[in-house]
Amino acid sequence: MRPAEEVIAGLGDYVLLHAGPPIEWERMCGPLRGAAAGAIVLEGWAPSLDEAEALAASGKITFHPNHHFDAVGPMTGITSRSQPVMIVENKKFGNRAYCTLNEGLGKVMRFGGNDEKVIARLRWLRDVLGPVLSEVLRSCGGIALKGIIARGLSMGDDMHQRNVACSTLFYRELAPVLARTVGDAEMLASILEFIGGNDQFFLNVGMSIGKAIMDPVRDIDGSTIVTAMCRNGTDFGIRVSGTGDSWFTAPVEMPKGLYFPGFSEKDANPDMGDSTIVETIGLGGFAMAASPAVAGFVGAGSAMDALNFTRSMYEITAGENPGWTLPSLDFRGVPAGIDIRKVVETRIAPVINTGIAHRESGVGQVGAGVVRAPLACFEQALEAFSGKMGVA
Amino acid sequence: MRPAEEVIAGLGDYVLLHAGPPIEWERMCGPLRGAAAGAIVLEGWAPSLDEAEALAASGKITFHPNHHFDAVGPMTGITSRSQPVMIVENKKFGNRAYCTLNEGLGKVMRFGGNDEKVIARLRWLRDVLGPVLSEVLRSCGGIALKGIIARGLSMGDDMHQRNVACSTLFYRELAPVLARTVGDAEMLASILEFIGGNDQFFLNVGMSIGKAIMDPVRDIDGSTIVTAMCRNGTDFGIRVSGTGDSWFTAPVEMPKGLYFPGFSEKDANPDMGDSTIVETIGLGGFAMAASPAVAGFVGAGSAMDALNFTRSMYEITAGENPGWTLPSLDFRGVPAGIDIRKVVETRIAPVINTGIAHRESGVGQVGAGVVRAPLACFEQALEAFSGKMGVA
Repeated sequence: MRPAEEVIAGLGDYVLLHAGPPIEWERMCGPLRGAAAGAIVLEGWAPSLDEAEALAASGKITFHPNHHFDAVGPMTGITSRSQPVMIVENKKFGNRAYCTLNEGLGKVMRFGGNDEKVIARLRWLRDVLGPVLSEVLRSCGGIALKGIIARGLSMGDDMHQRNVACSTLFYRELAPVLARTVGDAEMLASILEFIGGNDQFFLNVGMSIGKAIMDPVRDIDGSTIVTAMCRNGTDFGIRVSGTGDSWFTAPVEMPKGLYFPGFSEKDANPDMGDSTIVETIGLGGFAMAASPAVAGFVGAGSAMDALNFTRSMYEITAGENPGWTLPSLDFRGVPAGIDIRKVVETRIAPVINTGIAHRESGVGQVGAGVVRAPLACFEQALEAFSGKMGVA
Repeated sequence: MRPAEEVIAGLGDYVLLHAGPPIEWERMCGPLRGAAAGAIVLEGWAPSLDEAEALAASGKITFHPNHHFDAVGPMTGITSRSQPVMIVENKKFGNRAYCTLNEGLGKVMRFGGNDEKVIARLRWLRDVLGPVLSEVLRSCGGIALKGIIARGLSMGDDMHQRNVACSTLFYRELAPVLARTVGDAEMLASILEFIGGNDQFFLNVGMSIGKAIMDPVRDIDGSTIVTAMCRNGTDFGIRVSGTGDSWFTAPVEMPKGLYFPGFSEKDANPDMGDSTIVETIGLGGFAMAASPAVAGFVGAGSAMDALNFTRSMYEITAGENPGWTLPSLDFRGVPAGIDIRKVVETRIAPVINTGIAHRESGVGQVGAGVVRAPLACFEQALEAFSGKMGVA
């Protein structure tokens, strides 16, 4: 864990990274604009949210996708220079992936929240939690992560809309090291309460794992495997191994889901975030069989529906991950490696468990649901791939 | 949490409580004798295990079931005066239940282990962990427990052979309070590591909950509901509400299960422990549907078998607990309240997920499996009940 600017080259003043494929300010949705404005205030580039929006609209802020900088971010996915990011290393290939810390639930910057309370929490992450976790993770030599996901799959997590098991297992690994590192009892207790009070804390960890796993798959000649799926709230984008770093985009779809009291589908922003990197590695909607409880939370139907969502994903994937198994499918490995040929042939689109943000800036999360990746992305990718390979 | 002798009246020198229905030394199995000898050394009533066994055989030690003293204990279930016990209160009825702390896995006293390492760990529980938890639980006003089980059921726990979710959730509630209470960083870290390193820590908590829930059901005139099931390694015993505190016993059966490397069925002791109190409240084998992973661990078969074990238990129970639901059965409540009439009529015996102890004193756990409560207990109980009610 380090401040983003230390590990992400080029992330200086007036630069913001966002979720999804590239997008300019004019086409950004409400929550993405709201989060960008919040980050501008956090970084001190403007004194108020109104002035921050004006600054962004003026063209003075440069926006890039997280994915162009070895990073990912949930929902709006805004990453700015001073925010602490986790550093997740793929030991086999030596590459690293970065992601900010999860802020908790409700009104938070990843859902477009940007009021003083949201900014104050981000300051605490930057000034207190980030430096402490940096020291703690260094002192214990880091935490092995793939095994936590393996256990989480036997404990009802899908690693997208449900991370309570992994968050709690991660907390249990961290707590004794925190106890040996943080001298002040009250600070220690408040850090434990913050991490322990957030059942989605592990989401950002799982996303970094996804990015670290998929990046070495990029640029393999002749490969039709999807290396990233992501959304910026306007466009859905995918990248495919054999077509390098090209983005294939289509309009994002609207999740079908359940809304928090007082909200409905008319408040919802379309699908958003880099979090679909977890589906890209066989988790989230792909691992719904692990999590009949999440099927209820996202309104996906019965326990049998949860099993069937996963079963259908085997139709569009290249293999199964024997290290991450699903007890409810008699320990079959999660469906991994989305093959664009299979998606286009079967017309089965990848299924995604997602949070739903309010469509206006500054409100936050209003629900959770299920959404599909647009087939058009896969069709475009297959055409480009075929062209490159000289196939009709 | 208090030393047992403070809260259990009559638990003084030369008195030991054990799991299951009443039994005299001569009929006790190897692990129960071994644990008794270990406790005698722990309490300082004899200087060595050999002299402890001789003391017990001489008749100088008085043995009683935990159940006669508002207590329960896993496997051998030995409770002696200085051991710390958890105090679990049934807020609705005001009664309390007691259980020792879980020692961890492998060679431990509840499986008949009694060597110096086992005794040293019990001394640490008595002298360090017990007093700390006593202070911590007092300072936070106690921990609400039923909700932890509700969450655990959506996280793959059956609360008998699998408690990793509840143990970790419990740990997460405890850790910030520990951080504010334990001044010494190294002691704090070692306590966190002990509790966090034991995925079965919550077993004893769940058992106390079971005892606290079922005790108010005792002695209801005309009720055929089972209030306790337990085993001492020789006899299986049940109590039924309408027949008061009478025990109905039959020889325990041998679990069918999976063995740790190097052990087999010929090493196994028959079924043992008060832990079947969790099945009595609809958990353990009754909640196997929550836990396809535990079905694998205990050798109970496939994920579908796990669902079917639970489904069959609805045939012998009076109702469903709407507070404890099973996501994999579309949030149906666990089958609760075993009715002896239904057991006898259907010939479906309660199913139990259990640990397996070595049959010799001093070895410890050798496996885990599934076992049935003997039908003969229920037949005897129904005859006694019918006689009392004046029914043919």
